[in-house]
Amino acid sequence: MSSQHAPGLGVTDRTRIRRMKEKGRTDRADLNAVLAAGFVCHLGLSVDGTVMVIPTIYGVTEDTVYFHGSVAARSLLAAPDQTMCVTVTHVDGLVLARSVFEHSVNYRSAMIYGIPRLITDEDEKLHGLRVVTEQCAPGQWDYARRPSRKELGGTSILALSLDEASVKIRTGPPDDGDSPDAELGLWAGVLPLTTSWGAPIADPALPSGITAPPHLMR
Amino acid sequence: MSSQHAPGLGVTDRTRIRRMKEKGRTDRADLNAVLAAGFVCHLGLSVDGTVMVIPTIYGVTEDTVYFHGSVAARSLLAAPDQTMCVTVTHVDGLVLARSVFEHSVNYRSAMIYGIPRLITDEDEKLHGLRVVTEQCAPGQWDYARRPSRKELGGTSILALSLDEASVKIRTGPPDDGDSPDAELGLWAGVLPLTTSWGAPIADPALPSGITAPPHLMR
Repeated sequence: MSSQHAPGLGVTDRTRIRRMKEKGRTDRADLNAVLAAGFVCHLGLSVDGTVMVIPTIYGVTEDTVYFHGSVAARSLLAAPDQTMCVTVTHVDGLVLARSVFEHSVNYRSAMIYGIPRLITDEDEKLHGLRVVTEQCAPGQWDYARRPSRKELGGTSILALSLDEASVKIRTGPPDDGDSPDAELGLWAGVLPLTTSWGAPIADPALPSGITAPPHLMR
Repeated sequence: MSSQHAPGLGVTDRTRIRRMKEKGRTDRADLNAVLAAGFVCHLGLSVDGTVMVIPTIYGVTEDTVYFHGSVAARSLLAAPDQTMCVTVTHVDGLVLARSVFEHSVNYRSAMIYGIPRLITDEDEKLHGLRVVTEQCAPGQWDYARRPSRKELGGTSILALSLDEASVKIRTGPPDDGDSPDAELGLWAGVLPLTTSWGAPIADPALPSGITAPPHLMR
């Protein structure tokens, strides 16, 4: 389950992959790779008895995911023992099979469960905000004006341990290449979906002569 | 709140936008546009008392979102009155401001609340599956082999009304162009993020001579 260099992910009742076992991964390296590849997660929590799924930005270190969230912070203050679920998903393509039934999606997804910790210490809050900012736009923490104490006071940063997490990954062609449907003579394969950064668009309010810094031209 | 041709979205306690009011939209046309622009949603539900956020594919008509989901179906059978939350998010770019605090994300997001209906009627199930398939890959429903009764029996399709939904959209440059931070002389603007389809990749198991059908070459 775990390699020598990448401690495996523990399996709990919640993180055991019940369906499509072939897609479950148990290497921590897979979890880290999925989390490193994005900056928007979907946070699930219960607010006044109703489940809400909120998109928000995040940042990740070796063992912790940090995220913004005033709704989450309020819910946590109201129900300090509430387990939340943070899901990160990357859609890599459509899997077009011979039959509709075998159509699928190539994707990488991670689900993390736990009770987030609302950060109150100012230094730790700065650390969390730096992790989130650098995950979104590496280089901006050193380039932009950093938060004032007042701004920091108005920001809710939460930390969630990566202790309980699961990863699912699907790659490759459709599964019906060796089924009777292969005789139908239909095309089958993958339609890849890619996400890419465009060239920076300057704020119209920007005075002329200020060019985008090199770290944004990656 | 609503235009003449697009009936407005009703507002409930759950869908009232509490934060960042400027981003809330109340036109049904905005909701329809956000839902039409994607095919992967994040479904939030409670399983054995724990919130789960599950990525899954969906399709949408004028008034209903259809989605796959055996976990959702099982939860619905266990708790038939469970309100779920379906969130669809498109990330359009990073908003790089002069200050870290004003950094933001350009995005379009819809949240739909309601108790999904587990479809049991065979014709309606086929309809729902067609809507989901065509949203992912328009043209595939007529091209690929349609589901057999047995396959249909093994598929859970749920329908959720669009009656209770909210939409949030952020576009444009950062908000600190007229703040004292503008004097810092820092670059500010938007780093656009775009998602695009690549060329179809044939299944290695495909015999030579079968070319991708025109509807996939869009």
